[in-house]
Amino acid sequence: MAPRVTVYEVGPRDGLQNEAVTVSTLDKLALVEALAAAGLRRIEATSFVAPRWIPQLADADALTRALPRRAEVSYVVLVPNAKGLERLAASLEERRRAHDEQDVEAAVFLSASETHNRKNLNRTVDEKLRELETLVPAARALGLRVRGYVSTVFGCPYEGPVAPERSAMVAERLVALGCEQVSLGDTIGVATPGDTRRVLERVARSVPMTRIALHMHDTRGTALANVLAGLEAGIATFDASIGGLGGCPYAPGAAGNLATEDLVYMLHGMGYETGIDFVKLIAAGALAQRLVGRRLPGKTLQAELARAEV
Amino acid sequence: MAPRVTVYEVGPRDGLQNEAVTVSTLDKLALVEALAAAGLRRIEATSFVAPRWIPQLADADALTRALPRRAEVSYVVLVPNAKGLERLAASLEERRRAHDEQDVEAAVFLSASETHNRKNLNRTVDEKLRELETLVPAARALGLRVRGYVSTVFGCPYEGPVAPERSAMVAERLVALGCEQVSLGDTIGVATPGDTRRVLERVARSVPMTRIALHMHDTRGTALANVLAGLEAGIATFDASIGGLGGCPYAPGAAGNLATEDLVYMLHGMGYETGIDFVKLIAAGALAQRLVGRRLPGKTLQAELARAEV
Repeated sequence: MAPRVTVYEVGPRDGLQNEAVTVSTLDKLALVEALAAAGLRRIEATSFVAPRWIPQLADADALTRALPRRAEVSYVVLVPNAKGLERLAASLEERRRAHDEQDVEAAVFLSASETHNRKNLNRTVDEKLRELETLVPAARALGLRVRGYVSTVFGCPYEGPVAPERSAMVAERLVALGCEQVSLGDTIGVATPGDTRRVLERVARSVPMTRIALHMHDTRGTALANVLAGLEAGIATFDASIGGLGGCPYAPGAAGNLATEDLVYMLHGMGYETGIDFVKLIAAGALAQRLVGRRLPGKTLQAELARAEV
Repeated sequence: MAPRVTVYEVGPRDGLQNEAVTVSTLDKLALVEALAAAGLRRIEATSFVAPRWIPQLADADALTRALPRRAEVSYVVLVPNAKGLERLAASLEERRRAHDEQDVEAAVFLSASETHNRKNLNRTVDEKLRELETLVPAARALGLRVRGYVSTVFGCPYEGPVAPERSAMVAERLVALGCEQVSLGDTIGVATPGDTRRVLERVARSVPMTRIALHMHDTRGTALANVLAGLEAGIATFDASIGGLGGCPYAPGAAGNLATEDLVYMLHGMGYETGIDFVKLIAAGALAQRLVGRRLPGKTLQAELARAEV
């Protein structure tokens, strides 16, 4: 039996939040439908962040209510604070009136490095962890599974290298608070495979490997090499963004998210089972590209589209 | 002591040969100077192919005569046939009048797959190997070290998958004919790390691992993952192209060569010694980008240039 890997799709949230254009709610729903049709089973759909901070996701309430019910598909929405959870709860109440499935999960986030956490969340890592002591149980009380994100695990745009101990401490706290999975993020795409191995070795002393996901950015082309190191270490969940949607905020013009098609191409080539239909995935990438109106950086997407034109 | 890896630079030849614009001889020399200044020690400079086939390299004679003498730097030039070797010999004679160093090497090439070989070289693999039975010793008789290229090792645009046995047979023949190194090429960028491991395992039964180089294309974003698999298998020479110069002829608009900066970024991050100055390498990439007048696909190059602008 082929080993199974979960591809966790972040395009509609992490991708679209970093695109210049704002995509309409209906178009987002079409993208989510295409991703689900391609076989993605965990799709990060939006964030209940204040619309003044991220206008691209201002329709989180309407989108969450309208997310299509699909067998085996669960949607993850980001919850930055109590106000966000309140909005999510209201949307969920409406959604659950239509069908009673528990197909929405929450995700909380903070950074491993102090400066990035302060600039991004306006509080220290400790302050944020204390806030999560209330927020995570409150989300779970609503019947939500909760995922925890740790950003700047492999490097901070302000502080440079980040000690693996910091990420291990934050990851351990997130799990202790009730997060079922912790995703370790290479926010600025600086990791190389040795870093990935070292961080995983250290974090896995605090959190079981089965509960760790990797969220690698491809800013320097190293994402899939890091995925390979992660696979070898026993990681079975990898985050990726359709077409590589989403730039890198610290390097305008540079690539950001690992493209889902690149990840799936490599996983299938290596014999991993993902449940994803590659051709439908390329179709979803082509749709994403049309929706944002720019050539997306995903290499496999571009290679397949060029081949189709020949 | 840090393990040593040789980065074999193919930008001036493999890169420029696949760019739409033709770069002047003086600009090529400036690029070669920048690459040597960055610490690259093996630079593939040009090809003695018929100018009517690749007009971008029509100045192979003048360029070879003018290549700057740099301590420890050797240049490799492609020799497709007896006519090409004749031209190289004439250029070398002039060059050696100016300084008597043996700093030029030759490279010969063929494909592992029949159809690609026939379409590219107009003869069968066997016919080409018989031609090389004369060409390689003739090049060596001129005092040249000879490198052998095997193309379409991981897949053929016409035939699909290629049996590792074919590449092993061709590699073994090339070494028997006198090639000191054999570079295994993923011409269309389809390999994933499992393929890399399987091919290396098979080829290394016929040729010592120390004489094998990997020439991976990044068409689907997998190049560095394949490099990682290669490093783990014991490969110590990797081909790359500055800025990712050179598209993929079978997928217009798609990425081709692995970018030298991406490779070096990962190698340095993993503690490998390359002798390359990263900042000067980025400067060489910026020069390459100016010379071809298009945004190059190298991700690290774009990330570093964007950072420099902030």
